[in-house]
Amino acid sequence: MRVRHKPWAKDLLNDHPEWVITSPHDYKGKWQQVFEKEQDLKIEIGTGKGQFLIRMAQAHPEVNFIGIEMISDVLVMALQKALDSQLPNLKFVRGDGQELTEMFEEDEVAGIYLNFSDPWPKKRHAKRRLTHKNFLQQYQTVMKENGQLIFKTDNQGLFEYSLMSLANYGMWLDEVSLDLHHADVGENIQTEYEEKFSRRGQRIYRLSAHFR
Amino acid sequence: MRVRHKPWAKDLLNDHPEWVITSPHDYKGKWQQVFEKEQDLKIEIGTGKGQFLIRMAQAHPEVNFIGIEMISDVLVMALQKALDSQLPNLKFVRGDGQELTEMFEEDEVAGIYLNFSDPWPKKRHAKRRLTHKNFLQQYQTVMKENGQLIFKTDNQGLFEYSLMSLANYGMWLDEVSLDLHHADVGENIQTEYEEKFSRRGQRIYRLSAHFR
Repeated sequence: MRVRHKPWAKDLLNDHPEWVITSPHDYKGKWQQVFEKEQDLKIEIGTGKGQFLIRMAQAHPEVNFIGIEMISDVLVMALQKALDSQLPNLKFVRGDGQELTEMFEEDEVAGIYLNFSDPWPKKRHAKRRLTHKNFLQQYQTVMKENGQLIFKTDNQGLFEYSLMSLANYGMWLDEVSLDLHHADVGENIQTEYEEKFSRRGQRIYRLSAHFR
Repeated sequence: MRVRHKPWAKDLLNDHPEWVITSPHDYKGKWQQVFEKEQDLKIEIGTGKGQFLIRMAQAHPEVNFIGIEMISDVLVMALQKALDSQLPNLKFVRGDGQELTEMFEEDEVAGIYLNFSDPWPKKRHAKRRLTHKNFLQQYQTVMKENGQLIFKTDNQGLFEYSLMSLANYGMWLDEVSLDLHHADVGENIQTEYEEKFSRRGQRIYRLSAHFR
């Protein structure tokens, strides 16, 4: 996602430690402490402008949510939305999805969302895709039994790759939708990007899977 | 596939035992005898009007091919095409894909093609889909190590189902294409149905997988 550089972003994030955790390694194994209620914790990797996770937190008060985002200029837009909503079950982390096992203890996470992740289309960049087996290994470590990985994208190449990567890792596929917006699939909370691109007729793909 | 009833179909099939085997159980373990050369044997289940397999046999003289089709009125159309081509590496079987393990010995088959199989969209008919785990078990029995299952369809629901069924069975996915006719995938020999429906803008899906 390309966004304008905001020189004030880092300061605003630092001004709101009650919303944005910038030293996530300190909370490994202790994330329940930052929420009002002790309940399932689900995370989004690359939370972007935050619409998806804020709406999920509104729709699911019985779940704690953490949105992880590396880029301050983007995360600050999520923070601004969150300030309006004041949800007790939502936090953000400024941090790197590659360090998941340093942020979370084994079995600490009940679910992982990946939404419209960077496709990294060049073969030599495959390791950077969030569905590469190196990432799956980390997800497996931090997720508890039957925890779900839920992945949405409009990028055909990334979806093809991800189906193969998850299946070949040995994950169980619970759902595959090759045209989500024309399917009868129950709840689908949309990201900002998803709303924009699906209006242009772009197909949206989704899968859910778990480790076995 | 709906085709006109041809009262003469069975007679024509019976008149050409050199092309059409109607008692396939007799050849279990001995299929190489019916071909000129002993070489890899690949089969198509539901061979329909035959175009795919005839063209495959032309393009791959180094492989023996068998097309299995249950419906005489359809198989006779494949036979008529085959009579024109006189290929030494092609035979047809009038028989039921459900009886695969009674037709072929363990490891006798090097590859299996499923093209535009009946989608059986109703959930209660899932067992009839050619990618249901009961069929996969049979494919696993008759296929030799690293033998490929190659599946094409234009039916989105069947493709979604098949991805899950194969992955959850534990198969390794070697290729997934969500828009075959707009992909850079090398060889793609088309069926009659595929030519017709892709001209109408229908997406064609393909996957290749093997047992591990």
